[in-house]
Amino acid sequence: MTPADLRRLASEGKFAAPTAGYCDGYVQANLVALPEAYAADFEKFCRANPKPCPLLERVGPGTSKTAKLAPGADLVDTLPRYRVWIDGENRHEVPEIRRFYRPDLVFFLLGCSFSFEEALIKAGIALRHVAEKKNVSMYRTSIPLAPVGPFQGEMVVSMRPIHRSRVAQACIITGRYPEVHGEPVHVGYPEMIGIRDITQPDYGDPVPILAEEIPVFWACGVTPQNVLLRARLPFAVTHAPGYMFVSDKKNEEYAV
Amino acid sequence: MTPADLRRLASEGKFAAPTAGYCDGYVQANLVALPEAYAADFEKFCRANPKPCPLLERVGPGTSKTAKLAPGADLVDTLPRYRVWIDGENRHEVPEIRRFYRPDLVFFLLGCSFSFEEALIKAGIALRHVAEKKNVSMYRTSIPLAPVGPFQGEMVVSMRPIHRSRVAQACIITGRYPEVHGEPVHVGYPEMIGIRDITQPDYGDPVPILAEEIPVFWACGVTPQNVLLRARLPFAVTHAPGYMFVSDKKNEEYAV
Repeated sequence: MTPADLRRLASEGKFAAPTAGYCDGYVQANLVALPEAYAADFEKFCRANPKPCPLLERVGPGTSKTAKLAPGADLVDTLPRYRVWIDGENRHEVPEIRRFYRPDLVFFLLGCSFSFEEALIKAGIALRHVAEKKNVSMYRTSIPLAPVGPFQGEMVVSMRPIHRSRVAQACIITGRYPEVHGEPVHVGYPEMIGIRDITQPDYGDPVPILAEEIPVFWACGVTPQNVLLRARLPFAVTHAPGYMFVSDKKNEEYAV
Repeated sequence: MTPADLRRLASEGKFAAPTAGYCDGYVQANLVALPEAYAADFEKFCRANPKPCPLLERVGPGTSKTAKLAPGADLVDTLPRYRVWIDGENRHEVPEIRRFYRPDLVFFLLGCSFSFEEALIKAGIALRHVAEKKNVSMYRTSIPLAPVGPFQGEMVVSMRPIHRSRVAQACIITGRYPEVHGEPVHVGYPEMIGIRDITQPDYGDPVPILAEEIPVFWACGVTPQNVLLRARLPFAVTHAPGYMFVSDKKNEEYAV
């Protein structure tokens, strides 16, 4: 399946799964869409917090079609699942947002850690959530973000259990992808970053940590959703965690 | 103090301290000297275990003067402290080995993690043992080595407490120095690699781990001493842990 195939199926309501493990080699992106009144602050917020919010493309106002990540793809229905936020609450989880579209919406596409998973797997570093077709485990943390305007809060992280002998290599490999979260923000000891129960992720599926494995934590593109909760904007749209925008860009274009 | 100054003072018996923190910017090396009969196996052992035993130079038989790391420097008295091993036991700890020299001795100079400490410090990653002029903490582990001839056993590691927010960077930075142990072999959780009590190093000084810090472990050039213990060779010489050969090579020459 090509990214164009997946986007077409999603727009027809025929693809409704988490996107991890699909379209190997292609960049997947987090989505945040906001009224133009908040867009300048949100863009500044992304620039101030590039690890959780690596800005790949800004689209609109006046259009919902990307020019860079997948020229012509319409962001209102090419993701498999969306969340619609009203007054800071996740009020709808829907397969397309055509009926919510407003011409003042600005769409932000943010890098996603799925992009470096390909590089990890190529290096022989097993990722169980991919093998088991689960959504990656994600957690709220106590790691503070740099605040801008109404946008503030704490980082959300994704967690992958890595065999102890490959943890340093996982840091090195993902460090080559600064535009898709880069190297981990934390290694081991979940309680140090405010995670009380590693078996209970706040988003995604639980993935058990085996005896010889260490939980490794990367900044996560779900962070803005945690921030939107607090900002209580009258209206916003995001992807549903794990249901990403699949672009036409190759992951390797983002390696340094 | 230049490396030549330090080596001259050592040869005159006027420098008798651990070498960490001296001659910033210059490569320090571990020493193993063996009778020629064991040299071929030991060289193979180093090639099979490059992380703990990164071979920088082989000297002799027939000479004790280096040609590459510090041309003309005599390895019998330019290190500040040596250990002499008889039948697998550390029988003497001495400031020079002139009286033990035999023409069939072959000297091996192995890379040392002190080389990457400069790069860590430059990146703003604090190293408390350097600040406090202590010897780095070193531990025997359960990580197995690839055996060659009489040489076998488990890896010795050095440990540095690193602030949790810099652990991944420490992996990336040290990964650029494969000839001086490279990236860590383990991060956090000492018990996973057979270390029972992190407060009791097997070599070097204890360095406390503070609340926000994680113990990070690198392969250590003291590993061959652990291996010599088991091989029970009739005769061998090593540096004393922490008292290294200081070369004329710059650390940066070993960065990739």
